[in-house]
Amino acid sequence: MTGTDRQGYYSHAQQGEHEYFDLGGFVLRSGYTLPGAQLAFRTHGTLNANKDNLVLFPHMYSGTPSSLDDYIGPGKPVDTDTYFVVCPGQLGGGMSSSPSNTPPPFDRGQFPFVSIADDVLAQYRLVTEHFGVEQLHAVLGWSMGAQQTYEWAVRFPDMVPRAAAFAGTAKTPVHNQVFIDLHMELLKSDPAFADGFYSDAADVRLGLTRHALAFSLEGFTHEWYRGEHWRGLGFASANDFRQSFIRGYFAPMDPNNLVTQANKWWAGDISPHGGGSLEAALGKITAHFFVVPFGGDNFFPVEDCENEAGHLPHGELRVIDTPAGHFAMFGLQPADVERIAGVMVEMLSSPGYTV
Amino acid sequence: MTGTDRQGYYSHAQQGEHEYFDLGGFVLRSGYTLPGAQLAFRTHGTLNANKDNLVLFPHMYSGTPSSLDDYIGPGKPVDTDTYFVVCPGQLGGGMSSSPSNTPPPFDRGQFPFVSIADDVLAQYRLVTEHFGVEQLHAVLGWSMGAQQTYEWAVRFPDMVPRAAAFAGTAKTPVHNQVFIDLHMELLKSDPAFADGFYSDAADVRLGLTRHALAFSLEGFTHEWYRGEHWRGLGFASANDFRQSFIRGYFAPMDPNNLVTQANKWWAGDISPHGGGSLEAALGKITAHFFVVPFGGDNFFPVEDCENEAGHLPHGELRVIDTPAGHFAMFGLQPADVERIAGVMVEMLSSPGYTV
Repeated sequence: MTGTDRQGYYSHAQQGEHEYFDLGGFVLRSGYTLPGAQLAFRTHGTLNANKDNLVLFPHMYSGTPSSLDDYIGPGKPVDTDTYFVVCPGQLGGGMSSSPSNTPPPFDRGQFPFVSIADDVLAQYRLVTEHFGVEQLHAVLGWSMGAQQTYEWAVRFPDMVPRAAAFAGTAKTPVHNQVFIDLHMELLKSDPAFADGFYSDAADVRLGLTRHALAFSLEGFTHEWYRGEHWRGLGFASANDFRQSFIRGYFAPMDPNNLVTQANKWWAGDISPHGGGSLEAALGKITAHFFVVPFGGDNFFPVEDCENEAGHLPHGELRVIDTPAGHFAMFGLQPADVERIAGVMVEMLSSPGYTV
Repeated sequence: MTGTDRQGYYSHAQQGEHEYFDLGGFVLRSGYTLPGAQLAFRTHGTLNANKDNLVLFPHMYSGTPSSLDDYIGPGKPVDTDTYFVVCPGQLGGGMSSSPSNTPPPFDRGQFPFVSIADDVLAQYRLVTEHFGVEQLHAVLGWSMGAQQTYEWAVRFPDMVPRAAAFAGTAKTPVHNQVFIDLHMELLKSDPAFADGFYSDAADVRLGLTRHALAFSLEGFTHEWYRGEHWRGLGFASANDFRQSFIRGYFAPMDPNNLVTQANKWWAGDISPHGGGSLEAALGKITAHFFVVPFGGDNFFPVEDCENEAGHLPHGELRVIDTPAGHFAMFGLQPADVERIAGVMVEMLSSPGYTV
C-alpha cells in the first residue's frame, strides 16, 4: 500500500508524501491489462466517522496531486478543518502507473492508451474499497481534472452531489484537439524522443522545450502579453517569463507521461453515457454542478462551457475573466485565486443533489 | 525589366504573368546590400493619363501577388474599370528577390533580414520611378499586407489619401510573436531543413507539414471547427480539411522564403516613426484609414485593432465577424467575401485625406 518511491521529478522528495493504492491487474477500457497497477494519491485532513466529508480533487495535464496544495488546507478554499481531501494521480501522470515507472512490456513508448474513464474507475476503487466511502461530498478539478469531474458526475450520479469543473469541458473541443496534435508533434519532433524509447527523459530536452513553446502561446491570452501581466511575477521580459516559468515547468517531466495524458485529454468525451449525445449525457448529471470557464481560455472556451452548462439539470455558470486565460489555474494573479476560491467555497457549501 | 522566370511553385506557370522591377544593389535597412535585387509585381487595369488611379495591394505571409486576384477585376471590389492595381511581391516571398532565387553569398540560409520598411521602400521606387506616380489612389492589404499598408501611410503620408488594413496591426502583438516563434520552430525542426541549406525544398516536407499544423490551429477559430464550417467547402472531416487545404497550401513553398517573411512579420512596428511611440506614429497618418479586424482573429485581435484605430486622425473601424478568423482572407465563406468587398468599395470611393 505504501508503494515504492518514484525517481527524480516524480519522487517524494520533489512531490511530497504520497500513498499508493494497489489496483492489481487493472483492465483498461482499451482492453490492455496493466499488471500491478498503482494509483498514487495524496490526502489532506481527516475522514470523519460518517465518511461523508471526502472531497475528490484530481489534477490537470502535466500536474501531480501536489499541484493542488495551494487551494487545500486549514482555512483554505478546500478547508481541511471540514473536509477530507483526496488528490489522486492521473494514470500516466508519473506518480501513478505511467510509462516512466512501468516495467516491460508496458514501459515507455509501449504504455497503453488510457482514458478519462480509466482514471475515474481507478479512483472509484480507491474511494469505495480503500476508504469505504459511498458518497463523495464533492468532486472538483480544472482542465483534465474538470474532464474527470464530468466523468465522475455522469458515471456515478448517486455518489456526486456537488461538483465544480474549472476551465474544462465534458467533451474536448475540436480546436483543442488541433492544439493537442500540435504540441504532441512538437514533443515527438525531437530525434531523441526515439518513438518513446529514449533512455533518459532529459535527452528529450529539445522536444520538451518545443512543447513548452506551444503552451506559452495557447496557455495565455493576448492580453497577458499585451498588458505585461507577467511583470508582477518577478520577470524582466516576456521571454524571461516564457523561459523561466513555462520552459522551466515542463523541463523535468517525462515525455511519454505527457503523451499518455495528452492522448487521454484529446479523447475526453462523456457522450457515450448519452448514447453518443453530449446533451443527453449532460442531462444525466444530477449533481449541483458549477461550470467555471476562464475568460480568454484558448483550450476550453467560455462558449463551449456555457453550452454544456445549459444542458445540466442543476448547472451553475460562473465565468472568471482573467488575462491569464487557461493558466489562471496556476494562481498567477491574486484576483484569480480569490475568484476561484470563492467558487470553491460556494460549491462546497451549496445544497447537493443526487436525484 | 522582364526578369527571369522563376522555378516551380514561384513560376509564371503557377503564378500567372508577373513583371520585375530592377532595384539594382538594394541596401536593406539591416545594412546588407542585395545585388541585382528584383521586385516582382503583377498589374491589373490601366494607369490613367493623370496617373492618379493607382491602387497598391501588397500580399500576406506565404502569398504571392496573384493571391489577391479574386478581389481584382472589372466589376470586382477593386474595380479595374476604374483603377490601375499594382500587386507587389514581398521581398522573400519567392517572386521578388528571395532566398530561393538569390545567388551566393545571399542564397538560402544566408539571405539577410528584411523589414516591412524595406518592402515599402522598394515599392516606393516601383511606383515613383517605374510608373511616375506621385500619389496613390489607395493602399490596402491584409495580414502582412496590412502591416505594409500602415508603413506606407506613416512613411509617405502625402502619397496615401486612403488605406485599408484588413486583419493586421501597425505593431505586431507579443502573443503573435510567440506564434511566429512557434511556427518557425516547427518549420526548422525538420532535420532536412539543415539551417536553411537544403538542396530541395521538397525535402523539408516534415517541417512544412508541422508548420501547417500551427496554422490549422491559429488560423481559425474554435467556432470554425465547432460549427464544422469547413463542410461547405467539400471536405468530409476536419482532418480532411486540414490535410487538403492547410497542408496542401503550404506544401509546395520554400521554407527559407517563409522564414524571411516570418522574421519580417515578427518585427512589424511603425513606432520608430513616432520616436518609439506607437500612438505618436499612428497620429502621423493622415490617410482616410479603414481598420478592418476579423472577429476571432488569433493573430491580430480586434482589441489591438480597435486601440490602433483610436489613434488614427481619420480612422474608421469596421469589424468583420467570421468563424474563419484570420483565414477569412482566403474567402472561405461567401458572407465574408461580401463584407470584405463592401469595405474595399467604401474605402476606395471615400474622400481621401493627406493633410
